[in-house]
Amino acid sequence: MHIMIIGAAGMVGRKLVDRLIHDGGLEGRSISHLTLLDVIEPTKPAGFKGVIERKAVDISDPAVAPQIVKARPDIIFHLAAIVSGEAEADFEKGYRINLDGTRHLFEAIRHEGQKYFYRPRVVFTSSIAVYGTPVPDEIDDEFFLTPLTSYGTQKAICELLLADYSRRGLFDGIGIRLPTICIRPGKPNKAASGFFSNILREPLSGEEAVLPVSEDVRHWHASPRAAVGFLIHAATMKLEPLGGRRNLSMPGLSATVGEQIEALRRVAGEKAVKLIRREPDATIAGIVANWPRGFTAARALSLGFKAETSFDEIIRIHIEDELGGKIG
Amino acid sequence: MHIMIIGAAGMVGRKLVDRLIHDGGLEGRSISHLTLLDVIEPTKPAGFKGVIERKAVDISDPAVAPQIVKARPDIIFHLAAIVSGEAEADFEKGYRINLDGTRHLFEAIRHEGQKYFYRPRVVFTSSIAVYGTPVPDEIDDEFFLTPLTSYGTQKAICELLLADYSRRGLFDGIGIRLPTICIRPGKPNKAASGFFSNILREPLSGEEAVLPVSEDVRHWHASPRAAVGFLIHAATMKLEPLGGRRNLSMPGLSATVGEQIEALRRVAGEKAVKLIRREPDATIAGIVANWPRGFTAARALSLGFKAETSFDEIIRIHIEDELGGKIG
Repeated sequence: MHIMIIGAAGMVGRKLVDRLIHDGGLEGRSISHLTLLDVIEPTKPAGFKGVIERKAVDISDPAVAPQIVKARPDIIFHLAAIVSGEAEADFEKGYRINLDGTRHLFEAIRHEGQKYFYRPRVVFTSSIAVYGTPVPDEIDDEFFLTPLTSYGTQKAICELLLADYSRRGLFDGIGIRLPTICIRPGKPNKAASGFFSNILREPLSGEEAVLPVSEDVRHWHASPRAAVGFLIHAATMKLEPLGGRRNLSMPGLSATVGEQIEALRRVAGEKAVKLIRREPDATIAGIVANWPRGFTAARALSLGFKAETSFDEIIRIHIEDELGGKIG
Repeated sequence: MHIMIIGAAGMVGRKLVDRLIHDGGLEGRSISHLTLLDVIEPTKPAGFKGVIERKAVDISDPAVAPQIVKARPDIIFHLAAIVSGEAEADFEKGYRINLDGTRHLFEAIRHEGQKYFYRPRVVFTSSIAVYGTPVPDEIDDEFFLTPLTSYGTQKAICELLLADYSRRGLFDGIGIRLPTICIRPGKPNKAASGFFSNILREPLSGEEAVLPVSEDVRHWHASPRAAVGFLIHAATMKLEPLGGRRNLSMPGLSATVGEQIEALRRVAGEKAVKLIRREPDATIAGIVANWPRGFTAARALSLGFKAETSFDEIIRIHIEDELGGKIG
């Protein structure tokens, strides 16, 4: 089986590659060929015995998609996107990469299928940014899309395209709306959502972290491990039960910042909690106030997608996967 | 004031032009300049004293939009689209005209505004085809978009683009989802929705009409006169109350075919009703079964949009506007 990952150098992409290599196959079919693509050349993962290709590509270049699709991968994970903040700051770049790049890919698959039969599974990562306030505490599966950012707009449009191409049998697509990934490994970054991870990850390593919002802020989370699980399940599940509705809000954990901190206290003690410094930031608070706070995720749950059910579990996964089982 | 109508040769476009010329202005501002565009050159309307331009253009040609936007119309009505059946039969043409054509227009406005300030009102006609079954009897304003045709997908994507461009202040846009227009003047055509009009229009002129579905089929209607009223209101209303939610389901009348026929009986008598010939068509019945049956249209109503409240009224409007007040 040939698997292609577009966006393989990103955090979720790298974890997905590691998991695929670790598992060696999907549903009993072994992976013989991996194509790893990103805007920078993905690093070579350890332990893979099959054919591996790694390339730096710009999916917004219309010449790229026909090239990469020519090898007819069985499964295409399309994770590539520029993030919310950048898509908002650079209108043209956001539409070029997040919308046109995806459309080039979909069109390339359609054209490849015009030569002779080709219908790959396409797993597309969408985002809860397709929803905009006012939203209920729990967004259900029939709540309407009203993105309030260009990023969310681009994701929502790609969802619609994916559903139409799939309905027409041009490929077998599924779009999954990921919760905010927590705990995000790595260094603190400037993303407005960064603090949700920072306030846990940094104290777990003995470092200080800044909390810019109040403890009653509620948000929607899943671990990196859960996100990879969503992708694998989306790549292997039967899609007939989806009917025309090919895009799904993934399950997750709705928790307040206060609940995150209580979980940190339970898992890592008061010493860790003391490393959180309160430094209110009205700008970040304002941005976060527009974000979804929770989802029923009823369809995804009924279709077998699984997420964490407590923040203690999310923290323990980080300790296992990133800290070698030890708190710093 | 300069008003541009893209799709001016269509049924609704022609009626809009007539109404604008009849009224002479919008909200006290007189119309000095009309630009009428369509894929065929729109005919010259009678009675307009200002500057009038009429051109055959292909909006899917990227060179066209910058040309037509250069004159900086104050209001742009974008009604142009290929219809549902054609967009389904010709995938590439549908996306080229209904999606790319609209995007070229939006981009041309953005680029024009980069020279110096330009923020026209853009009124876009969307469609209830953005919704796909299963749907409730009354679709509310927060029901999710799941189009089940390429046409509906293209309209839904344009709605999202319109909202994002408007949010960014690139133009002042509003999208209106028109009900099925009834009674559509002219000859019977092959559109699956044609019979909703045929069974009234033909008997009113003493002609036979074919009814391919059962009398309990429920659908969502508004007259051509109401549709023009929606467009005028969308062009003149304040848009601040819309917030980020720039696309609205228009009000209409939810009625069964049986209720249509009863109204025909009341207005035109048994003689007219007898001209309806029942000829069940499983294909048409199957298509129609997937269509929305009604809307709350609560937002649009609260914002001042008005539709008919009885089919008697819809029939009388047809008699007044198309038959010179007389039943044939």
